[in-house]
Amino acid sequence: MKISTKLAHFSSPLYLESGRILEPYTIAYETYGELNSDNSNVILITHALSGSHQAAGKADSSNKVGWWDDLIGDGKAVDTTKYFVICTNVLGSCFGSTSPMSNNYPSHQPFRLKFPVLTIKDMVKAQILLLSSLGIYKLKAIIGGSMGGMQALQFAVDYPYLSEHIVSLAATDETRAWAIAFNKVAIEAIRQDPRFLSGNYEKDAFLEQGLSGLAIGRIAGHISYLSPKSMDKKFARDYVSNDGLFELFGRYEVERYMEYNTANFSKYFDPLSYLYIVKAINTFSLQRGYDSKEEAILRIKSNIHLISFSSDYLFFSSEMSEFHELLIANNISSTYEDVQSDYGHDAFLVEVYKFEDKIREILK
Amino acid sequence: MKISTKLAHFSSPLYLESGRILEPYTIAYETYGELNSDNSNVILITHALSGSHQAAGKADSSNKVGWWDDLIGDGKAVDTTKYFVICTNVLGSCFGSTSPMSNNYPSHQPFRLKFPVLTIKDMVKAQILLLSSLGIYKLKAIIGGSMGGMQALQFAVDYPYLSEHIVSLAATDETRAWAIAFNKVAIEAIRQDPRFLSGNYEKDAFLEQGLSGLAIGRIAGHISYLSPKSMDKKFARDYVSNDGLFELFGRYEVERYMEYNTANFSKYFDPLSYLYIVKAINTFSLQRGYDSKEEAILRIKSNIHLISFSSDYLFFSSEMSEFHELLIANNISSTYEDVQSDYGHDAFLVEVYKFEDKIREILK
Repeated sequence: MKISTKLAHFSSPLYLESGRILEPYTIAYETYGELNSDNSNVILITHALSGSHQAAGKADSSNKVGWWDDLIGDGKAVDTTKYFVICTNVLGSCFGSTSPMSNNYPSHQPFRLKFPVLTIKDMVKAQILLLSSLGIYKLKAIIGGSMGGMQALQFAVDYPYLSEHIVSLAATDETRAWAIAFNKVAIEAIRQDPRFLSGNYEKDAFLEQGLSGLAIGRIAGHISYLSPKSMDKKFARDYVSNDGLFELFGRYEVERYMEYNTANFSKYFDPLSYLYIVKAINTFSLQRGYDSKEEAILRIKSNIHLISFSSDYLFFSSEMSEFHELLIANNISSTYEDVQSDYGHDAFLVEVYKFEDKIREILK
Repeated sequence: MKISTKLAHFSSPLYLESGRILEPYTIAYETYGELNSDNSNVILITHALSGSHQAAGKADSSNKVGWWDDLIGDGKAVDTTKYFVICTNVLGSCFGSTSPMSNNYPSHQPFRLKFPVLTIKDMVKAQILLLSSLGIYKLKAIIGGSMGGMQALQFAVDYPYLSEHIVSLAATDETRAWAIAFNKVAIEAIRQDPRFLSGNYEKDAFLEQGLSGLAIGRIAGHISYLSPKSMDKKFARDYVSNDGLFELFGRYEVERYMEYNTANFSKYFDPLSYLYIVKAINTFSLQRGYDSKEEAILRIKSNIHLISFSSDYLFFSSEMSEFHELLIANNISSTYEDVQSDYGHDAFLVEVYKFEDKIREILK
């Protein structure tokens, strides 16, 4: 599989949903496989909150494998011997695309909290402009999970003729109060961490010692990505062996897991990016910009494929099934599958074998 | 209804499950109604994490009504014209009973982080000693929700002949990893708040400006006390009207609710107490101290009544129903009801009308 990692620089203004303008801006992206002669074999992959454009394989510069490598590759469900697969780092994220820590023009100082608020609509628009710049105007499919699934649906509504298929996994048609509440933990924990300095921290300030506010917020995130059952299976009530049961700060295994993963995360993920992406998730509602949800979905021309996970405690199966019913009631081509899983929201990442056949089927 | 608020001082040592000793110690408690001549009309109420001994009515010193006033009072399900009702503030809590901020003996300095770890077993033992000191050796019922429901079950196992009935609501037989993970947010947020000062803050330091670490942790708590449905009903995707949708820190109503309630909470609840009580919840397992869960429950002589709430996202209905099955399989007298509710874990506090008849029936 040929992997190519690139930065695309745009000097034309990006008009954002907020009314503000981003100019210039950069999009980091990675491609897998080869574009055919008439540019008709393209699949776009959209990533989640903490994801990046490194979706598959192992780019030269990377020492870790892509986050959806189980799904994408030669002979895999998203087959890179047939398809040219593109994954972009969303605007606002910290892996190469323009973000709050990018330099503002013309001051050449990082935007920080002056960065404009971004929405899922904006992230999608930026990707359209990238695709256009590559001469790609038609996609075979757009596939994404969680925030990636929101983007996939937003593409379907905002750009009806872009993609033959839209596959949205572990997502929702609008973010509910439950998910916003989980994000609130992170927002407050980051803002109130004194080392956050209202966003005026040094670049790379947290490489050695992560920002504890981000780590704390990420614990809440992890809870919502797992499920009671998966936690029971993984951790039970096991105690960290060298901690005492009667020590106040002695830990259960689930606590050690949370500490370890979130401390690591806070060393490589930028807290301003986290705030901006979480904001985009919170404000996600497919109907914004249209008179009603019906008006929004009546625009859709793609075939919509919704996949939820029975134990998803962040975006519940019921959200997807209700959205599917609404699509059907409005005569929008739509399939829906609730994958039985104990893995919670994370199932879209860790149980690819449970839905890869469905994706193969869609792409056939 | 006669209300009496008291402090009971004990100079004898309390032997804790950890092997440590608490001596002397104080228990704050409140009583409602009047004790009959043969001390046979007593009901004990046990409180949850943030509760206190002020369970009903309005004590002279208080300007708020008790937390279970819907349930307890003259002519109510727990009828104070018939019963003498006692509610104690659990050891470790900050409403009058001995806690981490109490003075250690003989140093006369607050214990702070030197306070011994307490367990649900210890809280229960301390209440037994209080009851004994009042000449009460037999109870009509012990009724509690959440951590109060854990205490009720622990009484049933550790003191088999104490109470005719045990009513445990919105609780579990052992705290699962899911609940421990929610508590982890609070533990880390408190510990890492610089104003926490490793527990060496001034007494009353947070009366004016609460400890933000506790407030952040409490957001995670509130998520687990509510449910996706109750949040949808209460907040939908409503936006705080004077915040802008495209302001980074503009807030949804659910965010304002979380901010308001948790900031308030952090002004009156002591963070060290929070850490110690959360630890007691985490370590709760009915079987600890016995060879197996079966061995523990085979001790039970009381009639057990389990009440769960269908939308409880902290202690799931399935935990209660499985425990009920285990009791039945071991020939322990047990009833179980899953109350249909959208209110989540908090239903035991806010939807008393849905289970008061059941409690009336039990006490008949």
